[in-house]
Order: sequence, then structure tokens, then C-alpha cells
Amino acid sequence: MSAYVGKYTTDFRHLYVGRTEAVLRPRTVEEVQLVVRILAKHGVPLVPQGGNTSYCTAATPNVDGTEVVVSLERLNKVREIDVGNMSMTADAGCILSALHDAASDVDLMLPLSLGSQQSCQIGGNLSTNAGGIAVVKYGMARDLVLGLEVVLPDGTLFSDLNSLRKNNSGYDVKQLFIGGEGTLGIITGASLKLARKPKATVTAFLAISDIADLSILLDRAQRFTGDAVTSFEYVSNNSLQLLLGKKPDLRHPLEQTSGHYVLLEASTSSHVLDLQGAVDALLEEAMGEDLVTDGTIASNEEQRNAFWHLRESIPEGEVLNGGSLKHDVSVRTSRLATFIEEASRIVKANSPEAILSVYGHVGDGNVHFNVVPPAGTGSVEFKAQFEGSVSPLIYRLTAEMGGSFSAEYGIGRVKLDLLATYGDPGKVALMKTLKKALDPGGHMNPGKVVAGDDRPHL
Amino acid sequence: MSAYVGKYTTDFRHLYVGRTEAVLRPRTVEEVQLVVRILAKHGVPLVPQGGNTSYCTAATPNVDGTEVVVSLERLNKVREIDVGNMSMTADAGCILSALHDAASDVDLMLPLSLGSQQSCQIGGNLSTNAGGIAVVKYGMARDLVLGLEVVLPDGTLFSDLNSLRKNNSGYDVKQLFIGGEGTLGIITGASLKLARKPKATVTAFLAISDIADLSILLDRAQRFTGDAVTSFEYVSNNSLQLLLGKKPDLRHPLEQTSGHYVLLEASTSSHVLDLQGAVDALLEEAMGEDLVTDGTIASNEEQRNAFWHLRESIPEGEVLNGGSLKHDVSVRTSRLATFIEEASRIVKANSPEAILSVYGHVGDGNVHFNVVPPAGTGSVEFKAQFEGSVSPLIYRLTAEMGGSFSAEYGIGRVKLDLLATYGDPGKVALMKTLKKALDPGGHMNPGKVVAGDDRPHL
Repeated sequence: MSAYVGKYTTDFRHLYVGRTEAVLRPRTVEEVQLVVRILAKHGVPLVPQGGNTSYCTAATPNVDGTEVVVSLERLNKVREIDVGNMSMTADAGCILSALHDAASDVDLMLPLSLGSQQSCQIGGNLSTNAGGIAVVKYGMARDLVLGLEVVLPDGTLFSDLNSLRKNNSGYDVKQLFIGGEGTLGIITGASLKLARKPKATVTAFLAISDIADLSILLDRAQRFTGDAVTSFEYVSNNSLQLLLGKKPDLRHPLEQTSGHYVLLEASTSSHVLDLQGAVDALLEEAMGEDLVTDGTIASNEEQRNAFWHLRESIPEGEVLNGGSLKHDVSVRTSRLATFIEEASRIVKANSPEAILSVYGHVGDGNVHFNVVPPAGTGSVEFKAQFEGSVSPLIYRLTAEMGGSFSAEYGIGRVKLDLLATYGDPGKVALMKTLKKALDPGGHMNPGKVVAGDDRPHL
Repeated sequence: MSAYVGKYTTDFRHLYVGRTEAVLRPRTVEEVQLVVRILAKHGVPLVPQGGNTSYCTAATPNVDGTEVVVSLERLNKVREIDVGNMSMTADAGCILSALHDAASDVDLMLPLSLGSQQSCQIGGNLSTNAGGIAVVKYGMARDLVLGLEVVLPDGTLFSDLNSLRKNNSGYDVKQLFIGGEGTLGIITGASLKLARKPKATVTAFLAISDIADLSILLDRAQRFTGDAVTSFEYVSNNSLQLLLGKKPDLRHPLEQTSGHYVLLEASTSSHVLDLQGAVDALLEEAMGEDLVTDGTIASNEEQRNAFWHLRESIPEGEVLNGGSLKHDVSVRTSRLATFIEEASRIVKANSPEAILSVYGHVGDGNVHFNVVPPAGTGSVEFKAQFEGSVSPLIYRLTAEMGGSFSAEYGIGRVKLDLLATYGDPGKVALMKTLKKALDPGGHMNPGKVVAGDDRPHL
């Protein structure tokens, strides 16, 4: 029996190559229902797929070829934009950047910003509760959802698309499907909150000498700007150097190197408040106190784009240096500096040759604590070795500090072991109860998020 | 068999007087678990109770006296405040205003503001996903929750109290208990987001002649203040006059009466941005365009309190006029003015003698479309008559306009019929599935939220 192998079966990070007998691409919600009903009737497991940009192989089929891929890519219409309600209703298969454009056309914005926004789909963003670079102001994908439309594992429809900001009429069941990674149903449509477009945006690239000052600077920035900070992104000097070393055309925004950098962006929808003045005052104070040792504010859109290009190229810098082993962890923002220091010590003690690449969304307590193989080392072997020996120590530290082993990537199939080890047993038991109640046949994206008895009973 | 009748068995609005054989008041989470286990073992149904301030009798036991009340009032400790993380972990039985004070002591705030905050408890606030007067900026109670601790119907514990802002490690199961009204488990503790205290607050009482201008004014206010509007409360002239007529010591803030008023409050944590100047500029423009016909800005804390006292006394004004029949509805903010006009026409056509008292949180599309009996009428008879004949027309209009029959009050036992009539069948079916999965014995707050087969199987 031959099976298709290609873009629908290979995950974004090339961690996993699955196989499938069929890729179904329904054009309507009714067709999704029909497909799900027929597959359920015949006991055929299925994998819902959006842009297939999951970082934890949540959207790729298994290697045994028994799972059918249901791609949402043809469900790609913006159904409605209500400017007065500041809401948008869209099909699940809409590309995120297309929704950005649609919102922009009516002078509003959809404030979900991800590296993969040119190819990821909103249904996948919601199924994985995506994070990104604007969480500090606008929250996670979950926080943008007013309503969902979901095809349940038996083919029936749940719909909650009235675009209301307040609705306490029973359990908020839509929440289960947000971050459910397609294991409880297939999101086919969503109603989303939009935001007002900024009238002023101030972007600064700042150097910090002591990592413990990160949280002090964030708090100070929020106090000066009136909680107008939209992004507060940390970049370690290591991460920046890995990138600049391979991309000589990119320019370091500051004259001197420092141990730590912050890409700070604040924005306001107000045309009368002086946000630029507030950031100037912030920097004057912060530099006077040596909280910030050096810094530059983008004076035009080109410079702003250059700062962001640097930040967004950090993962590419890792790839050009042999790729990275990723630890997507979060702790309380109050513990983040300590976590980075402790975890760095662990790496130095146990794998002194490893190159750290630490960066992330520290405004949310989320750091990508990544490790790059030393130059000249076999990348695959190094990562396997590190993952088996040092990663567990990093995750144990995360757990001891009350953190999470998956801040924004999710579980998929690659973090099932971590969930079993570090997940709260009460939560894991509840997850199994919910999976069994909503998908008793176990056909819906089996082997992801909930381990064990969720395989289909053929 | 005699049974206790008193504060634990009578609901806040005196709609329902239940009975009970026992009120249990555990002192620890372990005692809650023990109580739940023992009651489950003997098939005894229980009613979790916080401050018992539900507007839909969600926290009062049944009339037959078979249900045991489990009061959380002795679980009333603030467990921890992490200033750097801007979070607070508290027992479910903490009075909301006590949490306000605890946050204020460390120069932060818990931005959940309710009329009943002197007696309601945080566990109840979360179980009902409470709204209140600051939703337009800070969201519903749900939006403030970082984690929950819940005793499940079998006495086991689910706990998620790590106070993380980002955590995609599996289904976000805590969401089920927020707004679950105690039917899926008993919330015993919660971790909550705190906010920075405002450094500047501007409060204005504004007159509007055309209700359709409400949403235009809100949008304008957000654009001038950079989304710093914390409250945007609508008060109809009727509601204000009902109050002033019975409370001659209260003063109308404006010299001339108008059809509609807005209590607008904006605040910022910034000490450098000129929020007052932004509101001044807003009002100059809005009054120049007759969007606002009259208005006054509170010049000191005393005046600000006077504006808020008026707004918060509106329900008391209704009580002094014979009480009101409440319709807690929401529609899209873009449809709110049309809803109020249409619903008012329906009332005028079908019950011309009824006095409308319309007010609410229009920034969230939520209006309390209340009806007060005409002077000299028997209040009870009028309300029963209206509820049977005109209320269904109001709810039908709400449904036709894509709105909700319960914006913030919840379902309890009093809105089960409305849920059956207007709830999405897919959602109601899912709610039943969830109830059955999590509380198969049906002991947990039976007869609330989910109707039908949730009675205990004795």
C-alpha cells in the first residue's frame, strides 16, 4: 500500500514525516461535517490541518498512513467585518496575514502577530492558542476570540459566532477547542476581536547590562507609557551574534555590544497623547540610572523594520548555525531572570561546549531557551545527546520554579512525555475525561495532547 | 423534618427561599475535599456557596431541603501576592473588597468592580464569570484568572495555581469552572492578574440627545485617550429620574435634563501622559459637534464619588419604585442603540403603563433593560403579568438581533427556560455532555445551568 508523503505529511520543523492515504480538502462547513461523519462511521482517524506550522507536530499525520488529513485551506473566506462592533468573522482556513489585510482595509487591526503569519491559518492559530510578539498588550489568541464554530467528532456543529463581548449563557464551551490542537473537534470558523490601529508607534532597541533589570525596565516602560507597551522582546547577545555572524549584511543597531538587548515597542490609538515624549522621558530616566546602558529609537519606518527584522531573524540565525534544540518555557515574570541564570549554569556545567541562544517574549514570562551545537559538531547527534541528558535538567528546573514546559508551542505528539512527567495529575486526568466524553471513538487527531486510550477502537 | 431557612437559603434578590438540613463550612481545602467525598459517597447533592449574591439563584439550595450547602466563607485567606509578577493567589471565600484592599496595600489593583463587592466572594465571582463596571478595559472575571484550584465532584483536586501568563501545556480546563456556577466542581482558590494603579483618573458625566451617538462617543473616547476608557456606563433619563424622585438629597450633575447620560471614566498608570488634556480635547470636539450636549468633569474625588454614587444607586432607585423586572441582555455594540429603541417600542405597544429603566455597561454591548411597575400598581402582579406576556417578546428580539438573554448574570435556575428556548442546540448538548462527564452522579449544584438529567441518582 503506497501512501502520500509531502507538504501535508511533513511538519514545519521537519521533525516528523508522516504518511497518509488521503488529503481531504472540503470547501464548506457542511462538507467538513460530511467528511467527519463518514470517517467516524468507518472508524477512520483524521488529522485536522491548517497551515501545518505547528512547532510540536500537532497537525501532521502518523507514520503508519492510517490517518486521513482534513485540510481547511479551501475554507478561506472572510465572512463578515463589523466595524462598529470591532469584530471579524472568518473561515478557519484564512491565512493570518490575509486577515491582517482585511482588518487594515477598514482601518482596524487583528493584533495577532506571528513569525509564520504568511502561511499559518487562523483555525490553527486558535487550535494552538498561538502567542507571538504582541501578547503583552493584546493577550494570546484565546483572548481575541469572541466565538467559534466547530465540527464535533460526531459531525454535529457547535456554533457561537454572534460576536458578543459578554455572554454568560451557560458553560463557555468554546474555550475547550482553543488550544485543543484539533483533538476535540475541527474549528471551521471564528469571530475575532479587532483593535484600533495605532496612531503612534515608538520602537526602541535597548542594551541592558544586568538581566535582572529586564522586569524593572518593563514595569518602568508600562508606567511611563500608561500600559501602552505592545512588545517587550528579549534578545541575548549570543542570539544576536549567531545571526550577525552568518548574515554580514545585517547591522547591529548599537555601537557597542552588551550582554542583553530589548526590543521595546509601544503604541497608542490616540492622536493627542504624546507617546514619543513618554518614551523619551523613560529612556532619559533609565539611562540616567544605568538601567539601560545604550539605546536607539527608530526614527522612521525603515529603521523600525530593521529592528524587527533582526528580532524575527533570530530563529534563522539558529538554523544557519546548525539549528537549535528548543525549550519553550515560561515562569512568572518575577522569576525570569533567575531562571535564565540558573538554566545557563546548568548548561555550562553539563554541556560546556553548547552555545546558548536565549530570547523571547519576556513581557509574558516566556523565554525560548535554545541551544545551538558548537561549530563543527554533528548537529543531529549533539541535539540528541543534549536532549537526553541536559534538557531534562532544564525542564526539572522549570518545574521547580513553578513554570511551564510549553509556554506557547503546545503539546502535539512531541511533548506528551513532558506532560506525563510535569503535568498536574488532576489536570491530566481531567483532560482524559474530556477527550473521552467529546471524542469517545478517539478518531480526532489521535496521539496528540492526550496520550494513551485515545487511539481509535477499530 | 424541619430544615434551616435563613441567609444561606434565601437568594440575594429574594426570588427564591430554599431549605437545607445542613450548612457545612469547611476551613481548609482538604476539608472541602472530605465533605465532597462523603456527600458523593452517600449520594447527597450539594450547593457551593460564596457570598450568595447571585442574580439568578445559582447559590441557594432547593426548596425540598435535600441539598446541603457548602459555604466557602471560612476559606478566606490571601495566600500570596507576587508584586513582580503582578499576581495574587487567594482562597475562594475571600470577600472581593478585601482583595481590593490587599492589592492596594502593595500599590496594585484588582480591577474587578461590582455593586456587591462588600459581600460577594471571589470564588463566586469566578464561578459566575462576573462582569461589572470596568469590563471595557480589564475584561470579565475570566480575563483576570491565571489559575484555579477546584475540588471536583469526586473529591479529587485540580490545581493550576502557578500564576503563569502563558501556558499551553494541554487543554485549558480551568475555563470550564469559570462561569460553571459550581455545577462542575467547587472553586477553592484562584490566582489572579493584578493591574497597575492609575496615576490619573478622569471622570465625566455627559448628556447625549441621540442614543445612536453612544457608540460613536465611545469610539471617539477610545481614540482620544488611547484606549484608556475604564468605564462607559449608560444611564437613561428614566432611570435617573426614578432615583432622584425618591432620593431628594441626590443632585443631578447637570443643569438640564437630557434623554441619555454617560458616565465616562478614563484612567492611566502613566504620570507623564496628559490624560486630562486628552479628555478635554475629546469633549471640546464632541460638544462642538453636538455629539455631547452637556457635560461636566469631576474636579475632585468627592465629585467623582458623587457621579459614581448616582450610577450605583440606580438599582436602589428601582427598588424604591416597586422593584424592577430585569432583562440582562447583550448585543453587538454596533446594534445596541437599535436594540434599545426596538425593545422600548415593544414595551410601549404591549404594556404602555410600564416604566422603563434602561442602563448598563454599553461599552460591552450589555444593557440592563429593566421595567418598573407604574406607581400604584401591585408590583408582584405587574411583574408576573409582564414577564409572561412582554418579556418573551424582548428576548425574542434579542435572539433575532444575535444577542444573549444573559450577558453577565448567568443561568442559575431562573434562566433554564431561556437557555432551552434560545441556546444553540449544539452548545446545550455539549454542556450536557460535559456535566455528565465531570459530574456523573449529578450531585454538584443540581438543577442549575444544565437542566434535566443532572438530578442525583439516589
